[in-house]
Amino acid sequence: MTVYHAGHAWIGGKVERDVRIDVSGDRITGVRAGAERTGEILTGLVLPGFANAHSHAFHRALRGRTHGDRGSFWTWRELMYRVAGRLDPDSYFALATAVYGEMALAGITCVGEFHYLHHGPDGVPYADPNAMGNALIAAAREAGIRITLLDAVYLTSGVDGKPLEGVQRRFSDGDYDGWYRRFETLRGGDGVRIGAALHSVRAAPADGMATFAQRTDGLPVHVHLSEQPAENEACQAVHGCSPTELLQDRGVWQPMTTAVHATHLTAGDIEILGDGQYVCLCPTTERDLADGIGPARALADAGAALTLGSDSHAVIDIFEEARGVELDERLATRRRGHFGAGELLTAATAAGHASLGWPDAGEIAVGRRADLVAVSLDSVRTAGTDPAGLVFAATAADVTDVIVDGRRVVTGGRHRSMDVAAALRNSTTELVLS
Amino acid sequence: MTVYHAGHAWIGGKVERDVRIDVSGDRITGVRAGAERTGEILTGLVLPGFANAHSHAFHRALRGRTHGDRGSFWTWRELMYRVAGRLDPDSYFALATAVYGEMALAGITCVGEFHYLHHGPDGVPYADPNAMGNALIAAAREAGIRITLLDAVYLTSGVDGKPLEGVQRRFSDGDYDGWYRRFETLRGGDGVRIGAALHSVRAAPADGMATFAQRTDGLPVHVHLSEQPAENEACQAVHGCSPTELLQDRGVWQPMTTAVHATHLTAGDIEILGDGQYVCLCPTTERDLADGIGPARALADAGAALTLGSDSHAVIDIFEEARGVELDERLATRRRGHFGAGELLTAATAAGHASLGWPDAGEIAVGRRADLVAVSLDSVRTAGTDPAGLVFAATAADVTDVIVDGRRVVTGGRHRSMDVAAALRNSTTELVLS
Repeated sequence: MTVYHAGHAWIGGKVERDVRIDVSGDRITGVRAGAERTGEILTGLVLPGFANAHSHAFHRALRGRTHGDRGSFWTWRELMYRVAGRLDPDSYFALATAVYGEMALAGITCVGEFHYLHHGPDGVPYADPNAMGNALIAAAREAGIRITLLDAVYLTSGVDGKPLEGVQRRFSDGDYDGWYRRFETLRGGDGVRIGAALHSVRAAPADGMATFAQRTDGLPVHVHLSEQPAENEACQAVHGCSPTELLQDRGVWQPMTTAVHATHLTAGDIEILGDGQYVCLCPTTERDLADGIGPARALADAGAALTLGSDSHAVIDIFEEARGVELDERLATRRRGHFGAGELLTAATAAGHASLGWPDAGEIAVGRRADLVAVSLDSVRTAGTDPAGLVFAATAADVTDVIVDGRRVVTGGRHRSMDVAAALRNSTTELVLS
Repeated sequence: MTVYHAGHAWIGGKVERDVRIDVSGDRITGVRAGAERTGEILTGLVLPGFANAHSHAFHRALRGRTHGDRGSFWTWRELMYRVAGRLDPDSYFALATAVYGEMALAGITCVGEFHYLHHGPDGVPYADPNAMGNALIAAAREAGIRITLLDAVYLTSGVDGKPLEGVQRRFSDGDYDGWYRRFETLRGGDGVRIGAALHSVRAAPADGMATFAQRTDGLPVHVHLSEQPAENEACQAVHGCSPTELLQDRGVWQPMTTAVHATHLTAGDIEILGDGQYVCLCPTTERDLADGIGPARALADAGAALTLGSDSHAVIDIFEEARGVELDERLATRRRGHFGAGELLTAATAAGHASLGWPDAGEIAVGRRADLVAVSLDSVRTAGTDPAGLVFAATAADVTDVIVDGRRVVTGGRHRSMDVAAALRNSTTELVLS
């Protein structure tokens, strides 16, 4: 057993002082506030581990590179496809290891990797048809965090069924059956869960959705939903309903389904998602890609459980994502005070982990997974602030210590087994140079 | 003479490699790209020093403390006034020194301090009527950065002339003449300039504006402008015109006048400000306070020179402010690509310094002030990105070395003469506890 002593810890929705946390194996076996200072000292505020519920690991290679010529959407998309075209299982393992290393340093103890880069050039499968997915799983293990691999159906390039072209052919299994044959050979394990995804109503034909929903029953399932108005318009034109309604009609909204983005919704859509659905917001990406501001408060009020993702990794900082939910709602409404710190932290932790198939993570409580994240109260950003309001002041740079499933991954702001910055530089450079 | 060697430097609007920068006293005396590696090595990308064109130093005490009970506007305002009520020259010197230290660490080499907390409790002047302003000047010196003290007229609590109450009485000099008598005794000096401010059309009566403009001719003058729609409505009701028009009519828009915020403008207002005015945007504050998104692109297109400020210091990070201008415009328009990195960096540097009365700062060029800011290209945030897109990837935590007027202030991410985090903690705690 390891005994940790936290100067401050977030327990049961509030900040407690001098908290003793006992850990055996991968579990928390004791929690007591007002304890004597003994064991391994974690200074600052100790939070449960963060869940990054929506990641496309390879997008990290684009950071800071899509704003040339002012950075139109097409600047971004062109480079995104160039990188997608160049990756192979080895280079993707290297890149994803670095990206998950950056996540570990930011206090993220589990990633939901929305994965569609399945096959080799021109869509020819690798000898191991899951070589790319398995590279992502291996990368998460290497970086010391858990992963839920959300393996995506990606078959068309439009709601109208337009075929995939160029690099997009790497995404396709031909049809739903082809996807399922490959998918069913994926294996989870220690720190690894397998989930599924429908890329979107643009990329996943409606005729196979109902069977998909049956085949993935009980698994975490993620869907990109209404990120841009154009998707809604195309769906109305072809199906006469919104994407949310189409997915409802085909039975995709199961208890473990997450709608990702959910930016442009009707009142009816919000009602559907409010029936206990997970909704993953990605504020830094939605701002970077000019998607707009989603109806976060309305979704939460309707009954949706909000989660958070860094998506395109323009930023990897769950504090930024969490406060972005509140701050963007302020921009949209011109009022303050929509989400309290506790709600935002729940989205960043317990709700996120549960949505990824880890309902036993995301809380500092007996029986839960021993994910602990110590955040400095003594950086220039956090000094003098109230620990209870830390989510509004801290950044990923303030994370000092990270424990995942009882194992130390980060100490003093450094990853214990890798030089993350060097790994990012080395794995990125060749991918982005022309 | 000191010779610096920058791995990369931002020169003449682009990134050059291996740049030798010669510094004599407070000036740059030589700049040459493609130089041999000699002298003091500055790794990463070296930028000109940042100007923080709008600061209320004491608001830093509120960071992370105004979101309890979800954080309404009133939560914020109540705490802001509580802190304002408690400060005296000694405690304000201590707090501002810490805040300016945080700015130095973020690469800010000059602050524009918009100062209205002039007098003692109940509005009784201190023995030195400028004790508070002089405390701010001394604080900037202590922290090693330049300051332009923008001493503000603050006489009423509404456009209708409603008198000040409670703690607000500390802000008032009674009338414009009283303000001017105190103001004219302020003295600049090495690294210190004196400018003036009209708090806003709410706090500065219209009848004295024209004389104010004459008395402050040639000085930097700042005005809070149309931060919230309520100000516009009140101004229309009393004066039958917008705040921008009222200030135009009274001759306040001089070449050295800066409009701060300028969030809610008419097309006519934009045309007026486009006639070469400075406009200081404070995106992190405008998001935090739910002000809304100002017409940044339209102002720049009309001819305004944009500058940046961290204002309430919810965040002190000029990278965040700079990219916030572009990112919030994306949220408002649902398109990417409004501002290039070069425009954003100009706002953060040359334009900001010029607006504060330091036209010889903000560029790495011969004859300019020797303000140099080295930003790591090797942090987990910046590794693998393009140096030319750094403003979209870096944070204040990536600033490693800062030289102000030829003097080293920050080395290896640490302030050379103070423990900034400890200073922030020590100077804040008593002010905010009830």
